[in-house]
Amino acid sequence: MPERVSDIGEFGLIGRINDLLKKEGIRSDRVTIGIGDDTASFLPRPGYELLVTCDCMVEGRHYLPRYISPRDLGRRAMALNISDIGAMGGKPLYALISLGLKGEILVEDIKEMYRGFLAELNPFGAAIIGGNLTKSGDGMFIDITLIGEVKQGKGVRRSGAKPGDAILITGCPGQSAAGLQLLLQAPEDSKLLGHPLVKIYNTPSHRAQLGEVIARTGCATAMIDTSDGFLGDLGHICEESGVGAELFKEKIPVSGDLQEAALMLRRDPYDFFLGESDDYELVITCQPQNVDLLRSVISKCGSVPVAEVGRITGAPREITLLLPGGEKRPLKPLSWDHFRSTAEPKV
Amino acid sequence: MPERVSDIGEFGLIGRINDLLKKEGIRSDRVTIGIGDDTASFLPRPGYELLVTCDCMVEGRHYLPRYISPRDLGRRAMALNISDIGAMGGKPLYALISLGLKGEILVEDIKEMYRGFLAELNPFGAAIIGGNLTKSGDGMFIDITLIGEVKQGKGVRRSGAKPGDAILITGCPGQSAAGLQLLLQAPEDSKLLGHPLVKIYNTPSHRAQLGEVIARTGCATAMIDTSDGFLGDLGHICEESGVGAELFKEKIPVSGDLQEAALMLRRDPYDFFLGESDDYELVITCQPQNVDLLRSVISKCGSVPVAEVGRITGAPREITLLLPGGEKRPLKPLSWDHFRSTAEPKV
Repeated sequence: MPERVSDIGEFGLIGRINDLLKKEGIRSDRVTIGIGDDTASFLPRPGYELLVTCDCMVEGRHYLPRYISPRDLGRRAMALNISDIGAMGGKPLYALISLGLKGEILVEDIKEMYRGFLAELNPFGAAIIGGNLTKSGDGMFIDITLIGEVKQGKGVRRSGAKPGDAILITGCPGQSAAGLQLLLQAPEDSKLLGHPLVKIYNTPSHRAQLGEVIARTGCATAMIDTSDGFLGDLGHICEESGVGAELFKEKIPVSGDLQEAALMLRRDPYDFFLGESDDYELVITCQPQNVDLLRSVISKCGSVPVAEVGRITGAPREITLLLPGGEKRPLKPLSWDHFRSTAEPKV
Repeated sequence: MPERVSDIGEFGLIGRINDLLKKEGIRSDRVTIGIGDDTASFLPRPGYELLVTCDCMVEGRHYLPRYISPRDLGRRAMALNISDIGAMGGKPLYALISLGLKGEILVEDIKEMYRGFLAELNPFGAAIIGGNLTKSGDGMFIDITLIGEVKQGKGVRRSGAKPGDAILITGCPGQSAAGLQLLLQAPEDSKLLGHPLVKIYNTPSHRAQLGEVIARTGCATAMIDTSDGFLGDLGHICEESGVGAELFKEKIPVSGDLQEAALMLRRDPYDFFLGESDDYELVITCQPQNVDLLRSVISKCGSVPVAEVGRITGAPREITLLLPGGEKRPLKPLSWDHFRSTAEPKV
């Protein structure tokens, strides 16, 4: 019989997790107390600001266990927190994992989930230093607090965009959301798990290394990740910077995979780019004369595509789409809202 | 109609919470970015270690809404995190609040819960700097990450107890657990909400100020809060320090209220002291010659009772109860285990 959480209990499970972290995790010299006391503790680096973020994934709401392996689930939960640190130009350091579990969950699945966390943390030399285990109600949840650092004064905020700035986007947002829709429309089709967009949905990339490099140039006036959808997050920049934006439709990067999937789903591929979430790309604003510098810095970081999709305007909160024929269409910065949605469930 | 979370949505609720925090919360000079960006950020103080802890309360598991007001719920959730920082000798600085909510919850109840958080944080000059809101499944949850600081090298761990050390306990653990049992045995009796032990259960005290003062003396060899029950937490000290303990039954502080409640509940009051949880008192070990110094320091901090209840021995993990007649009874360091319990639900 495979071992379940209820067989070994909370303290048994803590022991297994600790063993796994000791063997497969990173040991940081600055951590003065890790797991196993009332709190964890660490020594901050002089000259650095600390960044803190937390994000939670709830079973049935942000994921369905039958569509994602425990390891990919762990990777995805950690990636979205890393993405937030990266969007400030920071580097992840320490994670605390708070899990709401059901007793019937397999111990091996929890270990696999931790391996997923480590797969994302280890490349940064980042460590899991604490957390909490509790029994949840009907569904599991994974709540991660991630601490990072950025050189003092070098963090890139949402609030620095200025009229005339260029708007850049990395990668091709919308692919992940289309992957989710493919899954939801044919939930019994197990072949779908191999579809490139479903893979992007299940194991999204973040751009944290890139975010750090971009911040170091000092050229980004604002930066945010697309966790609330491109339009939602551009809306956050506009809101916090007191500006508006114009987008050029023909510059919006729509991948071949997304076009194909949109056709199957009978949806406009641009809706996926603009409106939906689950991609962790970066929206960056900068002065027009710095676009080439940022492009060259980004290209040195690997094969991440980057597109200049619009410019910042002085009209607060107004976002407009410019069509190739010159027509202008006002856009509403809709982003995912957990409580108001009447559409399909967010999984 | 009173306003519900589903009426104003996630971003509406974030706006209300921000307004409340601006009006009623603390503004910290070292916080460089508060709520409203990808991450919060702050400047750590040179010469200090940072402490991090997280603890989660799940509806139906750690609390039942009909027994506790939203404000008290907020206080209780925050107090147990503050207690962990205090048990290291630290001072709380910054909190991140991750909530799993149902759409039908009243906005005013959420605001009241935040007022509860602030009632615990404001006395320390500590601030809420971030968090996350999500829709939960069948029950609400409150997951708090609390960051604190302690002077470098001054944190008191679980691992420093030595054979011969005295064991001190603040307050009267067990009262809160008895309060919970009173509630569970007569759930419809609303008068019970005024019972002193039920009040202790609903709004437990922490000893964080005291913990900081004790740490500063440098005399505590180990310290822990009683969140897993006195015996469970003394067990953690024994485990981490590689020692055992002897307890003197006649020295164990059992309050008149606890004796009375135990009689009503037909339970041994010592079982509440030893075995159950939900009190946030401090277990402290120190060399015998430092007991008087610690007593005097503690008495200067207010009217917190402190009792010397035993001594540390060299027999690893063995905890023994010495009865007044000289008889010895071995004790098992049972502490609350979320997944193995077959007894009544933990609420």
